[in-house]
Amino acid sequence: MIEDIRVDGDRLWSRLMEMAHIGATKNGGVCRLALTDLDQEGRALFCGWARKAGCAIQVDAIGNIFARRAGLDDSASAVAAGSHLDTQPSGGKFDGALGVLASLEVIDTLNDHGVRTRAPIESVVWTNEEGARFGPAMLGSGVYAGAFDLAFAYDRRDKDDIALGDELTRIGYVGAVEPGAHELAAHFELHIEQGPILERNAQDVGVVTGVNGIMWFDMEVQGFETHAGPTPMAMRRDPVPILAEIVPKIYQVAASEGDDSRCTIGVIRTHPGSPNTVPASVTFTIDVRHPEKRALERMDATLRSLAGQYDKGRCPVSLKRTWYSPPVKFADACIQAVAEAAAHCRYDSQPISSGAGHDSVYLSRVVPTGMIFVPCRDGLSHNELEHISSEQATIGANVLLHAVLKSAGIG
Amino acid sequence: MIEDIRVDGDRLWSRLMEMAHIGATKNGGVCRLALTDLDQEGRALFCGWARKAGCAIQVDAIGNIFARRAGLDDSASAVAAGSHLDTQPSGGKFDGALGVLASLEVIDTLNDHGVRTRAPIESVVWTNEEGARFGPAMLGSGVYAGAFDLAFAYDRRDKDDIALGDELTRIGYVGAVEPGAHELAAHFELHIEQGPILERNAQDVGVVTGVNGIMWFDMEVQGFETHAGPTPMAMRRDPVPILAEIVPKIYQVAASEGDDSRCTIGVIRTHPGSPNTVPASVTFTIDVRHPEKRALERMDATLRSLAGQYDKGRCPVSLKRTWYSPPVKFADACIQAVAEAAAHCRYDSQPISSGAGHDSVYLSRVVPTGMIFVPCRDGLSHNELEHISSEQATIGANVLLHAVLKSAGIG
Repeated sequence: MIEDIRVDGDRLWSRLMEMAHIGATKNGGVCRLALTDLDQEGRALFCGWARKAGCAIQVDAIGNIFARRAGLDDSASAVAAGSHLDTQPSGGKFDGALGVLASLEVIDTLNDHGVRTRAPIESVVWTNEEGARFGPAMLGSGVYAGAFDLAFAYDRRDKDDIALGDELTRIGYVGAVEPGAHELAAHFELHIEQGPILERNAQDVGVVTGVNGIMWFDMEVQGFETHAGPTPMAMRRDPVPILAEIVPKIYQVAASEGDDSRCTIGVIRTHPGSPNTVPASVTFTIDVRHPEKRALERMDATLRSLAGQYDKGRCPVSLKRTWYSPPVKFADACIQAVAEAAAHCRYDSQPISSGAGHDSVYLSRVVPTGMIFVPCRDGLSHNELEHISSEQATIGANVLLHAVLKSAGIG
Repeated sequence: MIEDIRVDGDRLWSRLMEMAHIGATKNGGVCRLALTDLDQEGRALFCGWARKAGCAIQVDAIGNIFARRAGLDDSASAVAAGSHLDTQPSGGKFDGALGVLASLEVIDTLNDHGVRTRAPIESVVWTNEEGARFGPAMLGSGVYAGAFDLAFAYDRRDKDDIALGDELTRIGYVGAVEPGAHELAAHFELHIEQGPILERNAQDVGVVTGVNGIMWFDMEVQGFETHAGPTPMAMRRDPVPILAEIVPKIYQVAASEGDDSRCTIGVIRTHPGSPNTVPASVTFTIDVRHPEKRALERMDATLRSLAGQYDKGRCPVSLKRTWYSPPVKFADACIQAVAEAAAHCRYDSQPISSGAGHDSVYLSRVVPTGMIFVPCRDGLSHNELEHISSEQATIGANVLLHAVLKSAGIG
């Protein structure tokens, strides 16, 4: 029975370990930056496995790789699954690679069981998701979805001023296909959660409903630069006590929007920054995230009004929004396919909104998109200690298999 | 009557303006860094005026200049007055130069009125007070007082790795006199307040009783580095809310020691400092000042106990004292001489403790020392906008004149 087929967990795990060998760090992590020789080596390993599985390989002009298993109706758009092979400089073995190799495992499993699907199935590698070498992140999927044009992407530079386009040419991954011209019927991405929620809740699988919206702000508290010695405290315009006063209010703004709300003050700077000088100003960043657009709008308004309360004070506060990424809602059909696949395999699952960005953010603009999360140890990611068990990888791949099967249709 | 003599305020002002011409900046300030060609030019201008006033000039091995007006008892140690001629990179016209040129004005005034003093009188230029080019600050007076040895001083380097000793040789100010061997009976320093207290209190003169003690601390709040998205707020170890909580308590520690207490948090840094990363830690500096040793000791203990309260928490706090400069009490006789000179000239005066360091800090270790403050506009210093009126300069110089006269004795 097709309903009973499951992936080969050992094959998946052994491929994950073989891929993790490419760029392996001595602390058990992986450094396989986008478009380096190591990325080229990882791509070649993937393509070799895909060809062995009988796939036809297409590469588009931004280096995204589409490995296709023919469908009964081969003129239909493919149901795709994929993720990325590039990593952070001190990355782990599973961020990205799990989604790519699980999609390949889906194809191999279908081959093993001689299952024919109506629509073709594709395993996809998206270029430069991390943005660690070439900013911005999610560039390959962004170009595919029309968020960035190709010229912009080619001209991204690494820290040595090397252009992305030149590196893509050098490693041989400038394909003939125009990005976006290669249409997909749906796209599923299996990914580690990169957070602690599923582990805390003892869930096997997260059915990802979308990706949180993100707002970035720069806040500045103006003071007056003074020598640390002579001026009495009461006569100073010291921005630091105002910083201390306003920070809890900022966290409170986020807390008032419930448990899904996130608020991070990642960078605080004093200017000029000398131990014996009362700062002329303190600047800091605010990263606010929420799955609901309305909640983000309320937080935006409340933060502005909070800054405004200091307008007439000794230390005026200014606020500038520097980035806005709206919340993403995945396609109902894809969310449903993932939820049903998890139930079908009798895994415990819960809905979850992704706090971090993924290729699926851009893909969802042009393709019905779904995501599957599996828990990772201590919620740790972007870290050499990132870890999942072989069983967790297998569970995720099984959900991916049945979600893809459901979307592609069985012959 | 000797009691009625007063300095020539116009001569003093015109010399201040002529000195300010050397290294003048286009915004009305002065940049005359230690041991540059401009410092050499300023020293030459001073020495020319001193020779014209009949002074004999001695230079010691660290470049301190002693211009001596003979006394009736020329074997007696001189009563000295002086300050420095080097400035901050964006310094003003009066920080240092006022004390040097007022001491010269004392000698010229005594010449004008044919006054003979028992002890010799010297006008002194101390080398590299600012420490802006060669750290540490107050180096010439520090070597004189034995706080630093000569080899250490010669090996100080500027940002281009040029040694202080080489520059001192180049501008021709390595004198034959061993620093400290040239004994002084007393030293008076006239200086701008560099703070707003005298101006606020509408006082002509501050009778400086000493210099505040200074403690520097580094405080660190440890957190746990996490991606700004996935981890719920309640599961984070975010050091930033702890920073906000502890900062008001630190200011409170200082406030509990009264109006003479100063507390400055001049540098705050988040690590690694990325907008979408919960910081692994926040570090910041604490500069605490007070005229009383006991108060400093209490603050030290309270800050340590404050840090200790976080030991068992999610974000432990550590505290390290990186510098301690004990409070300085000036000699009673010198404080008395300054207070009487101000009263004698019918100027309004108040006792004041200096919040900033001066050459007098080191000199007080080996010579009975006194200081006179005059108010400066808005308390502004280390700034091109630093300003005093000609009248304020004259008032300060008159107090210096009568304090020196009282100490030197009249023939």
